[in-house]
Amino acid sequence: MRTFISISFCLILFFGCEKPISSNSISVNDIEALKEAITNSKAGDEIVMANGIWEDVQIEFSGQGTEDEPIVLRAETPGKVTIEGVSNLKIGGQYLIVKDLHFKNGHTPTKNVIQFKIDDENIAMYSKVTNCVIEEFTQPNREVSDQWVEFWGRHNELSNCYIAGKSNFGPTVMVRLNGNEHIKNYHKIINNHFGPRPRKGGPHGETLQVGDSYTSMTPSHTIVSNNLFDRCNGEVEIISSKSNFNEFTNNVFFESEGSLVLRHGNYAKIDGNVFIGNDNSEFIGGIRVVNTGHWITNNYFYKLKGKVFRSPLAVMNGIPRSPLNRYNQVTDVVVAYNTYIDCESPFQFGVGSNVSQSEVLPESEIRSARAIRTIVANNLIYNHNPDDQPVVAHDSVDGVMFAKNILNSPNHSPVKSEGLITKDFKVKEVSDGLFVPTENFESVYPGFDFETITTDLFGNDRTKQNAVGAIIVPVKDGVVLVDKKNYGTDWFATEKSAYEAQTLQVSNVEELVGQLQKANSGDILALNPGAYELNEKLIINKNITITSSDKNNKAELIFNSDSIAFELHPKARLQLDDIFMKGNGNQNAFATLDKNMTKAYDLFLENVELDNFKNVLQVSKGAFADTISVVNSVIKNSNRGFQLNKETDDKGDYNAEFVILKNNEFTNINETILDYHRGGYDESTIGGNLVFQNNTVTNSGKQEADHILIKNRGIINVDFSNNTFKNNPVKLIAVLWGEKDQKPVDNTIENSGEIQVVQNLKLKLMY
Amino acid sequence: MRTFISISFCLILFFGCEKPISSNSISVNDIEALKEAITNSKAGDEIVMANGIWEDVQIEFSGQGTEDEPIVLRAETPGKVTIEGVSNLKIGGQYLIVKDLHFKNGHTPTKNVIQFKIDDENIAMYSKVTNCVIEEFTQPNREVSDQWVEFWGRHNELSNCYIAGKSNFGPTVMVRLNGNEHIKNYHKIINNHFGPRPRKGGPHGETLQVGDSYTSMTPSHTIVSNNLFDRCNGEVEIISSKSNFNEFTNNVFFESEGSLVLRHGNYAKIDGNVFIGNDNSEFIGGIRVVNTGHWITNNYFYKLKGKVFRSPLAVMNGIPRSPLNRYNQVTDVVVAYNTYIDCESPFQFGVGSNVSQSEVLPESEIRSARAIRTIVANNLIYNHNPDDQPVVAHDSVDGVMFAKNILNSPNHSPVKSEGLITKDFKVKEVSDGLFVPTENFESVYPGFDFETITTDLFGNDRTKQNAVGAIIVPVKDGVVLVDKKNYGTDWFATEKSAYEAQTLQVSNVEELVGQLQKANSGDILALNPGAYELNEKLIINKNITITSSDKNNKAELIFNSDSIAFELHPKARLQLDDIFMKGNGNQNAFATLDKNMTKAYDLFLENVELDNFKNVLQVSKGAFADTISVVNSVIKNSNRGFQLNKETDDKGDYNAEFVILKNNEFTNINETILDYHRGGYDESTIGGNLVFQNNTVTNSGKQEADHILIKNRGIINVDFSNNTFKNNPVKLIAVLWGEKDQKPVDNTIENSGEIQVVQNLKLKLMY
Repeated sequence: MRTFISISFCLILFFGCEKPISSNSISVNDIEALKEAITNSKAGDEIVMANGIWEDVQIEFSGQGTEDEPIVLRAETPGKVTIEGVSNLKIGGQYLIVKDLHFKNGHTPTKNVIQFKIDDENIAMYSKVTNCVIEEFTQPNREVSDQWVEFWGRHNELSNCYIAGKSNFGPTVMVRLNGNEHIKNYHKIINNHFGPRPRKGGPHGETLQVGDSYTSMTPSHTIVSNNLFDRCNGEVEIISSKSNFNEFTNNVFFESEGSLVLRHGNYAKIDGNVFIGNDNSEFIGGIRVVNTGHWITNNYFYKLKGKVFRSPLAVMNGIPRSPLNRYNQVTDVVVAYNTYIDCESPFQFGVGSNVSQSEVLPESEIRSARAIRTIVANNLIYNHNPDDQPVVAHDSVDGVMFAKNILNSPNHSPVKSEGLITKDFKVKEVSDGLFVPTENFESVYPGFDFETITTDLFGNDRTKQNAVGAIIVPVKDGVVLVDKKNYGTDWFATEKSAYEAQTLQVSNVEELVGQLQKANSGDILALNPGAYELNEKLIINKNITITSSDKNNKAELIFNSDSIAFELHPKARLQLDDIFMKGNGNQNAFATLDKNMTKAYDLFLENVELDNFKNVLQVSKGAFADTISVVNSVIKNSNRGFQLNKETDDKGDYNAEFVILKNNEFTNINETILDYHRGGYDESTIGGNLVFQNNTVTNSGKQEADHILIKNRGIINVDFSNNTFKNNPVKLIAVLWGEKDQKPVDNTIENSGEIQVVQNLKLKLMY
Repeated sequence: MRTFISISFCLILFFGCEKPISSNSISVNDIEALKEAITNSKAGDEIVMANGIWEDVQIEFSGQGTEDEPIVLRAETPGKVTIEGVSNLKIGGQYLIVKDLHFKNGHTPTKNVIQFKIDDENIAMYSKVTNCVIEEFTQPNREVSDQWVEFWGRHNELSNCYIAGKSNFGPTVMVRLNGNEHIKNYHKIINNHFGPRPRKGGPHGETLQVGDSYTSMTPSHTIVSNNLFDRCNGEVEIISSKSNFNEFTNNVFFESEGSLVLRHGNYAKIDGNVFIGNDNSEFIGGIRVVNTGHWITNNYFYKLKGKVFRSPLAVMNGIPRSPLNRYNQVTDVVVAYNTYIDCESPFQFGVGSNVSQSEVLPESEIRSARAIRTIVANNLIYNHNPDDQPVVAHDSVDGVMFAKNILNSPNHSPVKSEGLITKDFKVKEVSDGLFVPTENFESVYPGFDFETITTDLFGNDRTKQNAVGAIIVPVKDGVVLVDKKNYGTDWFATEKSAYEAQTLQVSNVEELVGQLQKANSGDILALNPGAYELNEKLIINKNITITSSDKNNKAELIFNSDSIAFELHPKARLQLDDIFMKGNGNQNAFATLDKNMTKAYDLFLENVELDNFKNVLQVSKGAFADTISVVNSVIKNSNRGFQLNKETDDKGDYNAEFVILKNNEFTNINETILDYHRGGYDESTIGGNLVFQNNTVTNSGKQEADHILIKNRGIINVDFSNNTFKNNPVKLIAVLWGEKDQKPVDNTIENSGEIQVVQNLKLKLMY
């Protein structure tokens, strides 16, 4: 391969400065030239990657820069160098800077996209990655685990990057601490925009993890500051801190379905963060606390609806003498000077208490050790609609001291304390979502070392004038909770302009197939009345709605294809409205790919009639639906219904986040209507959501081997109400899980077995 | 009570100094005056306790000094104020100094003699206790636990004190970390002389403990430097470090039967310490390592014979995912630049590996996690008598990296490494026990962060000239390993002049009773031939030898007393030589007090004949013998032999450290010859030592309910050899413990049951 290197060398002499600064800029056009440039690089060099697509490149950026003269690897123009295909970047050495690169349309062949070491002998120190983008650089097989940025060494930095769209297993950013070279690292993760991470289903979807369960005793000192976590919905832990002395300051958590979790390790500082929820999601949490010595100060919580594990403040029970990888007792935690605006029951203690499950769990899993020596002081709680349960005690709170907390609602919770003070006060909205009290409550509790809390959320000096809550009033003009411009790169547009969907008319099979192929994501295919006989499966790999142009004269799709009617590919969003679908009894109506379901899909059916299929929905292991919603539809004469039962490793994973079946008729389904499975003892991963409401099920289940009509084993949230079951020859309609508050409500059962409630399910231990 | 206060006030003005220093000296004669003076004290005050005995005083020394003007509480003359009886001292406030006091002849009514807090609201900070003595201030009941100095708060100091003779349960000095006020404490424990602490038998006899099993994640930063640990024999842990970031530097461990143990917590610094053993004790250990990130550098180990747990370097196996209070895996430990002179097999790894005991232990007790990422480098090993097993691997050492370690013996251990280098080199003795090589081995392994090891044991700069081992040669003239003058107070004499024992002749019972009472400790009573009929028990509360003046015509002691012949009190040391003892069948020949056996006793019998007693030795719970030695004696026609079986709590305690029965005849003993019990699953407390050698046992055990002649359950070290058993109608002679390498050797058995060896004893878990 011919390589091209252009070298420009300039020596700049400053008057009055003894040391000349040499800058050596090397432009490279391909990987061979890049390798050579890296091999030859020395302190002060700048290696410039030519604009264009760099496909299938594995870059090992090693070198020895200095503080004054780092070695830089950068794009010719920020954002104009895209790294695609099977590619990655490893960094090893000192004072190395990578900037302006864009990773997309690909995935890493290793465990990391960017790794701060080349090997154990060649570890990055004092190096940084800045102004880069990693966008949907996700593994084809969602079950293959990787981390996009993996920190090793000490004093490294990830700054001003935009990172979004990780669908596969593994935290987006991981800080490794395994070895003396990597502790006391003082890494900086600052000014980044962590864009949306889709729901993953089960564990291993953190946006940031610092350490692991074996580093709970390790001093890390990682600094996570001024980042925007923007709809990071991967799992219940947005950030999982698993080491000591980490600092999480001045970050914004925007509508992110999870919590900042102090999972292992101790002495975290959580100061000046903003948590913004919204009105309808109970998935959006705040801070979950395990272990010792954390200081949670000056944080602002707005409209968080999360409960229990996802509470604005969730203080967990520990396991007495916990095994290293489980739950240590909370001790010596300080929660002071925080503000909670329109949060429901923000203080929850004894979270995870499971003494009642002693019969199904070993002693080493019983979380009975309550928080001790914990101080909750000088916090402000305001609710526009009174919330008279500011504290929820899942166990006794005898180890928690409340002092000088002020709330505007009456406290009718069982937790009474002189430190929970109801006052009639006002707040005003000074900018979007930012409510501040109209007065300062200056009488504060002076706890041990509280004098070290020297400023408020906006940096105002507490030593001069102090007040309860995160904010001392008045605030400066123009203060906002979140300004997206402050995060991420200086070149990448995170907001795409909205596409205006087209409606494409279809009158026959050829048009249907053709338009489906041509349609842009978001388009609607409107089928004129008539029968469409399809000899091949229809492939859905974008957002497509198929509807009947005349709702009173619905189009009929007749499938003669071999095994599948609709094949759902990654990122498919298929909506069928007002359609008849008829199969030949041998196909699946909907099926995912057999493998490499790299991203989630959605399926919406409304006013659809399905007749004579094998399975209604068949999925593969690793396939994940965000939402499956079937309403006002008829499903009949088929072998099985929805088969979301391939995650059988019993590690907490499952095949769909939301399954909504409402107002449907199921008739003559030979086996199960639904098999929706989540295996493994319920841990902090608390998903699987089933709504089975107002359906009528008739003459079904007669060939079901287990004699159960609806299987929902291990699914945490189940609404099972107002259904009618007639003449289904099964023993059980469903088994509900009492400990998760599942119960049948207003169902009508005729000649159809029974609905069983089991208080404690015995599930396989995951840890 | 009339109180007397004399106040002298002096104002000293320094020329050129803007701030006048005021000194207010208040003399106090009794506790009321002291209380008043404390109540009224202010920064700069000095409270002077009048010389004399202060009996039954509980002092609460509170106040607010400043860095420049502390408040001082001191003796009028150092050492002339003794605090006696039921007394203690609590300190609370800032910048308080206590000095020159002598605690003796008493014990504390609370859990501490000196406590660095008064209560949770009144905690000592920046305060110190210096130039004081605590001497045998031990609880009457040895089983009552206390700590003599208990640290709380931050920045407190114990310096230049002499502390010795603690016999009861509980560490001598304890650092508490439970609460944010007490972490990151930077306490200093410096320049102290920790004098002899007697063997305790079982756990809870540490000389210093820093934290507990719940503070393994807590930053402590306690500094333990320049202390002399002088025959601190309390238990296997001289120091038990149970928290993070503690520093143990430049201490001398002199003939102390135990180790410096990194029991919980991580990142200890152990630098520049000297460990001095002696030729015959296998109890004297070095450093035992558990957990992560410790740096063990520049230490000097001399003539240590300890093995396994007590090895010069004992690196333990951990329990995978250990419970909080058990054993974490060793990771990231550095052992560098240490010198081992005449130590046997100094490097031992996989210590505590107990996979072989899986059948008797739960999984949560199995230590199978080997050390990983551990570096052993630049150490020097010299043995005058070649030791070809420098490394003992109780498990694989695949996680340990050896580099540039130099030894003078061939390495025939199974652990081979290029990092274990045999060289023919010489050492010379530059002062008592201090051997240094005659040359520097300058090629050292440059590990990560090794440049932070900047000096050697004696402070020589390693950055200029470096060498393997703790010492760079040449050393300065006059360097010694230990100079006792450098430790402890400036007034207390730790070495008592030797008493010259008297021999007192005795011819009748009155003389015997009278002389026994009058005798000084160490004296000998020589009994003239004849029979001595005693109607009362003889009380032994000192060191007494009773012998026959004519060994060929032994004196005969005939006891008519009710229940006891000899009553052994605390500190008794009774030696009987060449004596006949005859009982009435209802007494015990020897018995301890029923309670308050505050200190250990010893019993030595040689050429003694005992006839017709109930029990030979009966003890109470809490009574502890250091040594029971019976040789060349005859014991006959009694109900039971030695009953050392009262520690039945199964917590690792036992009634005697050494039991030596050699060359004796036991005849017609109805039940057991010996019942010597230690309960609780064997943990790092590894005591109980039985020698049962060359005895002849005849016609005994016929009424023993369990049909066992000798009970030694749970005793760790047993030598059972060359005995003869004839016509003893029992099932078992004894049960030996295979896992502890116990085996019968060359015993002759006729018509006497059998000796059983059980590989793994199932004992009650202690934790």
